[in-house]
Amino acid sequence: MSEVKTISELRIDNGRLCRRIAELAETGAIEGDGVCRLALSDEDREGRDLVCKWMEQLGMRVSVDRIGNVLGVRDGLENIAPVMTGSHIDSVATGGRYDGALGVLAGLEVIASLNDAGVSTRRPLTVGFFTNEEGARFAPDMMGSGVHQGALDLDEMLASRSIDGKILGEELKRIGYDGATGVNQLRAHCFIELHVEQGPVLEQEAIGIGAVSGVQGISWTEYRIDGTSNHAGTTPMHLRHDAGYVAAAIAVEARRIATDMGGSQVATVGAIELVPNLVNVIARQALMTVDLRNMDEARLQSAEQRLAEFVSDIEASEGVEISQRRLARFEPVAFDDAMVALVEETATVLGFSCKRMPSGAGHDAQMFAPNSPTAMIFVPSQGGISHNVAEYTAAHELEAGANVLLQVMLNKAGL
Amino acid sequence: MSEVKTISELRIDNGRLCRRIAELAETGAIEGDGVCRLALSDEDREGRDLVCKWMEQLGMRVSVDRIGNVLGVRDGLENIAPVMTGSHIDSVATGGRYDGALGVLAGLEVIASLNDAGVSTRRPLTVGFFTNEEGARFAPDMMGSGVHQGALDLDEMLASRSIDGKILGEELKRIGYDGATGVNQLRAHCFIELHVEQGPVLEQEAIGIGAVSGVQGISWTEYRIDGTSNHAGTTPMHLRHDAGYVAAAIAVEARRIATDMGGSQVATVGAIELVPNLVNVIARQALMTVDLRNMDEARLQSAEQRLAEFVSDIEASEGVEISQRRLARFEPVAFDDAMVALVEETATVLGFSCKRMPSGAGHDAQMFAPNSPTAMIFVPSQGGISHNVAEYTAAHELEAGANVLLQVMLNKAGL
Repeated sequence: MSEVKTISELRIDNGRLCRRIAELAETGAIEGDGVCRLALSDEDREGRDLVCKWMEQLGMRVSVDRIGNVLGVRDGLENIAPVMTGSHIDSVATGGRYDGALGVLAGLEVIASLNDAGVSTRRPLTVGFFTNEEGARFAPDMMGSGVHQGALDLDEMLASRSIDGKILGEELKRIGYDGATGVNQLRAHCFIELHVEQGPVLEQEAIGIGAVSGVQGISWTEYRIDGTSNHAGTTPMHLRHDAGYVAAAIAVEARRIATDMGGSQVATVGAIELVPNLVNVIARQALMTVDLRNMDEARLQSAEQRLAEFVSDIEASEGVEISQRRLARFEPVAFDDAMVALVEETATVLGFSCKRMPSGAGHDAQMFAPNSPTAMIFVPSQGGISHNVAEYTAAHELEAGANVLLQVMLNKAGL
Repeated sequence: MSEVKTISELRIDNGRLCRRIAELAETGAIEGDGVCRLALSDEDREGRDLVCKWMEQLGMRVSVDRIGNVLGVRDGLENIAPVMTGSHIDSVATGGRYDGALGVLAGLEVIASLNDAGVSTRRPLTVGFFTNEEGARFAPDMMGSGVHQGALDLDEMLASRSIDGKILGEELKRIGYDGATGVNQLRAHCFIELHVEQGPVLEQEAIGIGAVSGVQGISWTEYRIDGTSNHAGTTPMHLRHDAGYVAAAIAVEARRIATDMGGSQVATVGAIELVPNLVNVIARQALMTVDLRNMDEARLQSAEQRLAEFVSDIEASEGVEISQRRLARFEPVAFDDAMVALVEETATVLGFSCKRMPSGAGHDAQMFAPNSPTAMIFVPSQGGISHNVAEYTAAHELEAGANVLLQVMLNKAGL
């Protein structure tokens, strides 16, 4: 690295980053270039072992905490609160190779680049990967980072049961990641996470870097509509109690609410199931979900309220019974303004187009936000495709994100 | 029957009718008082054997034709075209005990009552039960009556394959109902069928007898909507190609068309399936069916046209691809005005309230309508429930229907 004139000219080695991404993607590889590394599975252990080996090769001190989070530390000149980055290496059952892994491996690449350049920082640099971010095998998601920052209870989470009937604490032991380090103790100087966008916005607007301003609030509701099954030919329209029609009307209304409200409001009806689900039988039951999200809590509540009124009205007018179950409810999380601005400035200085944007998905970073100045860096997802083996971000886009991460960490860590 | 003063005072023995219904319901009995007598199954054979035994006990000449229809004939004073009644004894997998069986057994009860009273008629009386009316095991439905009256090709139907992979002709042989009598030969003087309504109209309006004016035209379409799967949080509303939303919007529009058009127009979306059907994933594919029915062919075409325009518009506006497959299309069938009027008059004379109404379901009678003056008699279905073990019609309602059948047959057969 003798050609580097100044710290601000320091860049990561993208070939090495991409090789690590490819090598990690071999653990739990599935057809179509995707991965299946469900949390605390054998494949997750294999991935963990590989990342731990890399951390050690980079000279980092590696520790495992009681919920299985792994932190690698590169000491600073002073023994003070670290600049922290990280993400997760667990995946959904048909996941892509970038979701989570990018943030962890770009963190390692930052360390590797500083090692190569012989650069020391004033603050320690910490790269972590957090247990069960996806929530695909154990509930809830963002579990490791939540326990790490005190938002979730350790013992309760250790007792969490997987979709395949296993206890989380026992699975941690089984794969050798039942660490001794305590949780809810470390307060980072700041937290910065690089992640793929998992949405189409950056690609559609041809922007290289997203400076993530926060995470949308999430409201998930399941509705069960009980109507009356009847013959599709012999039952006049005015005598029907059609659970399928009511489900469809709620789905259309959810969409109308989101488009009426505009801004960051989104609404999705991703699941509808009719019983008995036959061409010539009026459905007696419908099960459906509504997913509402907004960056603003008051506006999210207003969307919930509008939908609740519609549901109540149609229950009466169609003579059906509607019961509901809240599946999830998270308030929006705002990231630190100064941190978000730093991401924007850094991207601009590096010559990348940049957009301040919310995250529609949950991320480990949001668990750090209440305790430390936090932000995230997004890079484009081709076609917005996520949680899918076809997830893809081009190499030069990964490089851009990792270089922004490097410079943000250097800025916050100081020399 | 010595107390009977005149033919018009002749009545059926409802106790005997109800006993026969109960005894036939023991073949293929399933939990909840229902039956499973799928066409040409062992249970169907058992039911056929029982009804044939009864026909013989009543002194009828029994014949089986090449598609397995069974006709029992009570000779008339003259060897001329018979007055014919009948229905089916096959059922759906979770059927009730009245659907089909009532029409056959009420026909036998008419014969039994005439035998008891020593009444001879000028025309022969024929009671039939027709193969595979339900279409639950072999396609299409109303097969036996369709072949009998020349609407369906015998050889093609004999080659029909069941949902469990069996050939119809071989199943006929297996259960011993591969008869020798030719089809598409008999032209009845008239055809009259008693059946449960399978809808809620008579019960809701507290009417005892439906004089069925015809059978609605049926249009079944399956739509496959191909959109783009994406993250429910990270994909702005205007960048979505949401197959689930499009399916819901089509379902809501189908309902709107039916309520706008009024009259006999009905529309049902009974089946919707989303892929991947997850709370937080925009559906990439939806499969759905639309069932449209109307008594008037021009109006049915107009409903189809309106829906097709909506589907084409939303395909463009939402950026999805919609392919469609016609699952079924039958034109409406009008019954004979004089026969329908005779049912009304007879019901009124017998003291029953009566309503002229269309049938929303298909029935064997419609296969006779092109060749012979035809009508049907409906009796109420409690709660409109049909194709369900909970199907129910009260004993006095069965009795009313059977007495109307008796008097209509006597009227047409002459003395």
